[in-house]
Amino acid sequence: MTGSFTLPGESGYEKLTLELQKKWGADCIRDSDGTQLSDEITGSGVPIYSTICLIRSINSWAREHTEFLQRNFLMSKPVMAEGGTVEIRPLQGYFTQQFIINPDDPVSLWQVYDRTSGREHTDWDWDGEKVTVRNACPYHLYTVNFLATRIWEEISMYNHITNDWGDREHLMAVEPRYPETQKALLDFLDGWLKAHPHTGVVRLTSMFYNFTWIWGSSSRQRDILSDWGSYDFTVNPVSLSEFEKEYGYKMTSEDFINMGRHNPTHNPPTKKLRDWIEFTGRFVRSFGRQCVDLVHAYGKKAYVFYDDSWIGIEPWSGHFGEFNFDGLIKCVFNAFEARLCAGVKEVKIHELRLHPYLFPTGLGGEPTFAPGGHPERDARRFWACVRRALLRVKIDRIGLGGYLHLTQGFPEFNDEIARIADEFRLLKSLHEKGAPWVSGIKIGILQSWGSLRTWNCAGHMHEHPELPLNHIHEALAGLPVELRSVSLEEVKQSGVPKGIDVLINAGREGDAWSGGDIWKDADLKANIYKFVLSGGGFIGVKEPGCVRNEMRAFALADILGVDLEQGATICKGKYAFDVTREHFITRGLPAPAFTNATKGVYALDGDTKVLYADGDNVTAAATERKKGRTVYLSGFNYDFNNTRLLYRAILWAAHKESLENTYATANPACECACFEESNTLIVINNAETTETTKVFTPKGEYEFTLEGGGTKIVTI
Amino acid sequence: MTGSFTLPGESGYEKLTLELQKKWGADCIRDSDGTQLSDEITGSGVPIYSTICLIRSINSWAREHTEFLQRNFLMSKPVMAEGGTVEIRPLQGYFTQQFIINPDDPVSLWQVYDRTSGREHTDWDWDGEKVTVRNACPYHLYTVNFLATRIWEEISMYNHITNDWGDREHLMAVEPRYPETQKALLDFLDGWLKAHPHTGVVRLTSMFYNFTWIWGSSSRQRDILSDWGSYDFTVNPVSLSEFEKEYGYKMTSEDFINMGRHNPTHNPPTKKLRDWIEFTGRFVRSFGRQCVDLVHAYGKKAYVFYDDSWIGIEPWSGHFGEFNFDGLIKCVFNAFEARLCAGVKEVKIHELRLHPYLFPTGLGGEPTFAPGGHPERDARRFWACVRRALLRVKIDRIGLGGYLHLTQGFPEFNDEIARIADEFRLLKSLHEKGAPWVSGIKIGILQSWGSLRTWNCAGHMHEHPELPLNHIHEALAGLPVELRSVSLEEVKQSGVPKGIDVLINAGREGDAWSGGDIWKDADLKANIYKFVLSGGGFIGVKEPGCVRNEMRAFALADILGVDLEQGATICKGKYAFDVTREHFITRGLPAPAFTNATKGVYALDGDTKVLYADGDNVTAAATERKKGRTVYLSGFNYDFNNTRLLYRAILWAAHKESLENTYATANPACECACFEESNTLIVINNAETTETTKVFTPKGEYEFTLEGGGTKIVTI
Repeated sequence: MTGSFTLPGESGYEKLTLELQKKWGADCIRDSDGTQLSDEITGSGVPIYSTICLIRSINSWAREHTEFLQRNFLMSKPVMAEGGTVEIRPLQGYFTQQFIINPDDPVSLWQVYDRTSGREHTDWDWDGEKVTVRNACPYHLYTVNFLATRIWEEISMYNHITNDWGDREHLMAVEPRYPETQKALLDFLDGWLKAHPHTGVVRLTSMFYNFTWIWGSSSRQRDILSDWGSYDFTVNPVSLSEFEKEYGYKMTSEDFINMGRHNPTHNPPTKKLRDWIEFTGRFVRSFGRQCVDLVHAYGKKAYVFYDDSWIGIEPWSGHFGEFNFDGLIKCVFNAFEARLCAGVKEVKIHELRLHPYLFPTGLGGEPTFAPGGHPERDARRFWACVRRALLRVKIDRIGLGGYLHLTQGFPEFNDEIARIADEFRLLKSLHEKGAPWVSGIKIGILQSWGSLRTWNCAGHMHEHPELPLNHIHEALAGLPVELRSVSLEEVKQSGVPKGIDVLINAGREGDAWSGGDIWKDADLKANIYKFVLSGGGFIGVKEPGCVRNEMRAFALADILGVDLEQGATICKGKYAFDVTREHFITRGLPAPAFTNATKGVYALDGDTKVLYADGDNVTAAATERKKGRTVYLSGFNYDFNNTRLLYRAILWAAHKESLENTYATANPACECACFEESNTLIVINNAETTETTKVFTPKGEYEFTLEGGGTKIVTI
Repeated sequence: MTGSFTLPGESGYEKLTLELQKKWGADCIRDSDGTQLSDEITGSGVPIYSTICLIRSINSWAREHTEFLQRNFLMSKPVMAEGGTVEIRPLQGYFTQQFIINPDDPVSLWQVYDRTSGREHTDWDWDGEKVTVRNACPYHLYTVNFLATRIWEEISMYNHITNDWGDREHLMAVEPRYPETQKALLDFLDGWLKAHPHTGVVRLTSMFYNFTWIWGSSSRQRDILSDWGSYDFTVNPVSLSEFEKEYGYKMTSEDFINMGRHNPTHNPPTKKLRDWIEFTGRFVRSFGRQCVDLVHAYGKKAYVFYDDSWIGIEPWSGHFGEFNFDGLIKCVFNAFEARLCAGVKEVKIHELRLHPYLFPTGLGGEPTFAPGGHPERDARRFWACVRRALLRVKIDRIGLGGYLHLTQGFPEFNDEIARIADEFRLLKSLHEKGAPWVSGIKIGILQSWGSLRTWNCAGHMHEHPELPLNHIHEALAGLPVELRSVSLEEVKQSGVPKGIDVLINAGREGDAWSGGDIWKDADLKANIYKFVLSGGGFIGVKEPGCVRNEMRAFALADILGVDLEQGATICKGKYAFDVTREHFITRGLPAPAFTNATKGVYALDGDTKVLYADGDNVTAAATERKKGRTVYLSGFNYDFNNTRLLYRAILWAAHKESLENTYATANPACECACFEESNTLIVINNAETTETTKVFTPKGEYEFTLEGGGTKIVTI
């Protein structure tokens, strides 16, 4: 079997490129950002995939037109007034290779705030160097919200600094809201398309706006703010004024600055922020579609790489089809990212960029393709993470990224990729013969964002490994369940959507995944009470629906059977629970040690079955309320046993205990899927050690021994 | 030396009583609740101390007049509406030997709440058995606030049930707000005073209202609510209507029920609650004074035991003198309780009731005067705890409580008490010759309650050992510093009071000790900024001044140099600090492992000197801001090293590092005091092991070796 594999070609290594193309069964070759394929490769007859990142592609034009660079609001460091006058230098503490004060019209959009009183302060001026605040209140803290122009595109900046690129050109991100910029970009793209006749697929490195990445001047605090889902970089005078025209109200600097917190994805969005996201998304899709149409006009396909400049691209927004992309490429560390990609119905081709990248070092600086590196082990490990999802959903292509020549000293890696490519093609072929068995259980992930953030929070797992929802996604990605994200607003207004069997809310007090103060709303609570009492399942993780100054800390305590001691009820005695030893959910599993567990959770009364406890702290509980069932977990991190625990909790909450042994492995380190139409049972070992497992099927039990990371396929 | 010792006499053990009176040098004998001294003792010529608890002393009258029993509001368990009607049985879950539905006028003060919407619901009725809520909103939770009558006084109930007293009479607490009750109580007291000619001191077991202690029906949740500072039991139809007349507004049941949370002392009080406390305190003092006057009219002295029914008595209220008590007796487990007692200027005699009590078992059920018990060790341990305070302040008397005959099998205990009594008398005599050296540093404990809660939170340490302020009090109690409690409201309105050198705020987000949302007030923050920038010291412990949805989680972050990650700023990069190895505060001390530490505290920038860290979490930090200094500690629990750490932090924050070696021990397990007028240096060993220490004095260094718990005195 060959095909379905995208190889990163490398100029100067033509022989290697074509050798590995054969070894890995690659059916197309792509260039990478920063590499250009030679004629020998482009003329080899193998289809060519070419990479473009539009907004940093016209740097000489950008240097001439700095008025069309991207902008964003920043907040100065707070300065304390000692008398009635305060001087503030806005850029102090920011990385001045990334930011300059926006040179044109610098103050009309600025705001000064008294952060001690929380009020805007209007008596100030700017002399080109500093803001002078007059009539300040002594011993209050003042800040300036100001508009900065970005003079270094963040990915260029990161790669340049990380790889010590010296005097290589700093690329700049142009602002596509300006007609002049749009023209320059389309002209560039048109010229590029003409100049690349061999290219069959244009791979757009996302579209226009990078995720928010604000750097500081100090190497001790390089990241001032880093959020993979934030829209800070979409702000500029044009977008602000167009927004006001469309929405009838004005976004101020403070709407973005938000006391210096900005509006990271992990916090519940305001209505204004949602409007801004909708407004920006519409623009990104509209101008993005012009670019895609141009690509199509040259008879080429347009794929999008969902990373870096992904703001406005979100493939689960419900509007992704408007781009008219032909393919979606997702770089994956984890199974949930494979699900994120595979589930997008608006494109035909779903491709995964596997790890490790062909770079000397990994994300944490550890050697990969460098002395001491074991890229073959890394590849096997990453593949074992991702593969779980591919038992459940079909992916069309895989590929690698980086510098091919680095593989030269690592023949075991090349063998491992060949094996992985074959295993991938086998999995794909199974899906093509007919879908695998699924439990039919539909999970609703209840959070603040709804479908916009489906199968992810924001970004990758490693950016926020402490978030339980990242781990819940990861566990679910390999389970035979369907998932949709449901917004709290939607449930508040219209109840739990039909078809959902089990709702999961997993977060920390106040965050977007738990939900924040919307949980004080009576309709939201009543709609979920109704759902549960009528037979629905609910799983609350860590601090689900958690609020302050209400009767309960957990808004749903009365159905969850547990509540959280936040410090306001320390004088109230807690029910002295027993731990229930025998329960469907926990039978045979070790007690979980959730690394992100919340302490202080207690049982309301004896109707709550406490399944695990850490001293007086409830770790897991199960409660029945009329026809419905709820489960509480004090945290969640992905591992084999916890995944099994979650699946059992889902089955129990959905009243589907009978499915426990339908195509299931006895050993939680192993998972299986049955493609019933082709009578094929596939069993995988997710562990690095050899594992033995029974597999239960409606046709009987089987026993398998699999080497670490191994796979077995049998006809049943 | 003899005297200054109160012996609990016991009828039937006259010989033992008089023997131990001599052995311990007791100069008076008291009866206990539940024991009556025989004529042989009362006639022995030794002055007699007699105990009365007024409100439970007239039980036969109370049985005849249940309309004059004490009352309080309770909230029913929440019941979920499934249709439009909900039935609620108010007392369900409560201990019906403690509570009955208030039989007269049962519903005029009741309120029904929809706890899902948070709104009062007015369409309901009561049929004598249940409340029926009509026009309920389906899937909302409903509760009833109702008035209960208490038919068993809590201390009687506790002792009865704990000691298995069978059919012994249940004592009831009468409500002294009624003129009829006042008359009955004064008549009883008058008769009693007449009948006890030998009694020289009437020891009132506090006054009228027990701390709040609400019991549940289930042995799994006996404590529904237990708070040693709460005023729930002062509520009844008379007090409510008198309050309305005086204050011009009405307290509703919900003001007391507060969503079922009530108003425990550990939460910041509302203005209404403060009014209620002031109103009640005035009544307790006014009727209390009538009782004291009556005692005085018989030529006897009136001492008050500050425990159990202490509501309205608080000796640091600023009004304690209105009672005209002759003595204040405090039962002490800890040093801070000795300070609490000693510092009350409005009484002449300050007496400590030492532990262990002469009971078979201790508070935790462990044997004391029972097989396996070692009461002599307990006595030594408790004394070592308390004695630290007595190096700093003068106490006039000590005593014991309980059943004297229990000492019979424990001669080592009797020896130990003789030794302790002598050591106490020695300490007292030192104070009488002239006050010990003090640092002169004045600490302000900044919290919600101000002076009302000075040298304590509410109750004893063991009720809430997790509260850092309990431990801060305990550490400070043995240090040569003065302390006052300062309310946040006072600082907000008038700034930091003159004379304070170092403010300490130690609590958990939202509690009364941290302060809650008052920290959003600009004046409060600015007044403290001003204090610090002008040279003041500030020590923040755990979650000082902690709020949500502001620029900073710690309201004073900009002077503390640290802030808390509450989950809303996880996308903001944190400054990568180094730990400062050499600092005055930490020199030579081991890294503290605070048992109640808050995690997620980070340094704002490099101006913050991080003294200790647990991974990325700051454990201790020191920051200079203009002339002022601040210290942050992530938690605090009392032990020798942490106490030394706190003292150093105080000296540093107060710019008094030069005092470090003025009458100080090198070994943190030991402490010392110098009574300069009598040239006496006393050194104590607080540890149970033998310890050696240098002692630094202005006159030179000394070296001591002390046995566990030992004391040495030298003339210098």
